[in-house]
Amino acid sequence: MLLEKINQIIQRKTSLLCVGLDIDIERIPTFLHKEVDPLFLFNREIIEATRDYVAAYKLNIAFYEVLGIPGWELLERTLAILPRDVLLIADAKRGDVGHSSRKYAETYFQTYNFDAVTVSPYLGHDSLEPFLEYEEKGVFVLALTSNPGSVDFQYLKVDHMPLYLKVAEKVMEWNFIYGNCGLVVGGTHANEIAEIRQLVPELPFLVPGIGAQGGNLEVAVRYATDEQGRSALFNVSRSILYASDQTNFAEVAREKARQLRDQMNLLLSIYKNLNFMDEN
Amino acid sequence: MLLEKINQIIQRKTSLLCVGLDIDIERIPTFLHKEVDPLFLFNREIIEATRDYVAAYKLNIAFYEVLGIPGWELLERTLAILPRDVLLIADAKRGDVGHSSRKYAETYFQTYNFDAVTVSPYLGHDSLEPFLEYEEKGVFVLALTSNPGSVDFQYLKVDHMPLYLKVAEKVMEWNFIYGNCGLVVGGTHANEIAEIRQLVPELPFLVPGIGAQGGNLEVAVRYATDEQGRSALFNVSRSILYASDQTNFAEVAREKARQLRDQMNLLLSIYKNLNFMDEN
Repeated sequence: MLLEKINQIIQRKTSLLCVGLDIDIERIPTFLHKEVDPLFLFNREIIEATRDYVAAYKLNIAFYEVLGIPGWELLERTLAILPRDVLLIADAKRGDVGHSSRKYAETYFQTYNFDAVTVSPYLGHDSLEPFLEYEEKGVFVLALTSNPGSVDFQYLKVDHMPLYLKVAEKVMEWNFIYGNCGLVVGGTHANEIAEIRQLVPELPFLVPGIGAQGGNLEVAVRYATDEQGRSALFNVSRSILYASDQTNFAEVAREKARQLRDQMNLLLSIYKNLNFMDEN
Repeated sequence: MLLEKINQIIQRKTSLLCVGLDIDIERIPTFLHKEVDPLFLFNREIIEATRDYVAAYKLNIAFYEVLGIPGWELLERTLAILPRDVLLIADAKRGDVGHSSRKYAETYFQTYNFDAVTVSPYLGHDSLEPFLEYEEKGVFVLALTSNPGSVDFQYLKVDHMPLYLKVAEKVMEWNFIYGNCGLVVGGTHANEIAEIRQLVPELPFLVPGIGAQGGNLEVAVRYATDEQGRSALFNVSRSILYASDQTNFAEVAREKARQLRDQMNLLLSIYKNLNFMDEN
């Protein structure tokens, strides 16, 4: 069960934080450019600096794929040094007809052995089934995304509810069968997070859009988590990774990650009457 | 303009056929397994055998990605031998928030220099904009897919029309701005093809699902093409690639491709009163 797995990690790490390893040669500190392998070096430093404070790492495949073969090498080498006591998420947003989706599921769950993957719902059940059949893995389906374009289709009304709720409802049905589903719910949509959480109390949420994209951490943590202050992971990428472009970038990233973890736990203490602040 | 580009190719090649290079080690003739590089050898033979009869090749990225780094090497080597007088389509079905989609667009249009790519509409305009901004390239947006799961979301009614029509309508709007849009319309939906064609007369269609997936070629060609018998490409993968597992597989694939091309042109002569049968 994905939910139990995530909640165990959240409890053990006392953290709701997911760090997104959106590697970008144009964003990493320029002093690293003179190194032999600046991108791997950067990932390694960031992972070492933040591992104490995270419940998950998310690798946005776009940032690796764009580099061609060296990007996949970087992905493989990064996976090899990532801790396995947190959730490793491939943010791939794949979704294709059945026989092709089977290949994508194999890619992320076998070839690369991620713990979870993000997928797009547009092609419906048989496009997600190959992922869902890996019952020990996690499948986060895009419901409501954090970008402005989410209004184009996700907010369209179907059967008196917006499409994103319809997707959430369907994913809940699939979760009854497979037990390994979650939802991607953008942190930029304050009211909608509460609405979706109410509809699907038993699905874990992956919440991107906090930080650089402007999502409100307070609202997101308050409404995306369950009564025990769990069942949700909040992803932050750029505002941790690129918090500093100086030689102490990893230290600054570590401090930023610690602050974000603590801030989330403080919010839980305020809104859920929970106290995680002293434990770590 | 994507439409003009496609129609020029269709006219020059007298063909509506797109061959999908869905490479699969489990499907290629077993005698090839003893070769050093069976997958590349297979692609090369298929390309050589079919190039006279096609208007486009489509590479389904799932089948390459699943192989890890050797898969991307195979993709690169295959791209290097593909003819450039036809449309080369990356069937990637990508779609992510803006700054990530930018990386995917760069991957397929710059790193790999495809002529066109398939994308998923769920995240809306800003997720597709980075692709659309490559105005000399083509962007096929998924409207109605060929798989059974298309009923889950694509047929949901929004504003008194199914979501796939709403998507088609939006893509038409974007096409007024960028001029490089097309739609993916599954060949397994007979009535809907005509309905979509009527709504968006000026968008080129990429029609998968003919052949192994059971789409009706007759209906698809009749309703997806325009009055000049153009503006649509019909993709066939498995029923050409894996038509034979004998040493003459390429010859059989060539014959199958020729037959399909001729069959499509025959249908145009029947339904559109056009005669392309004697030209090639």
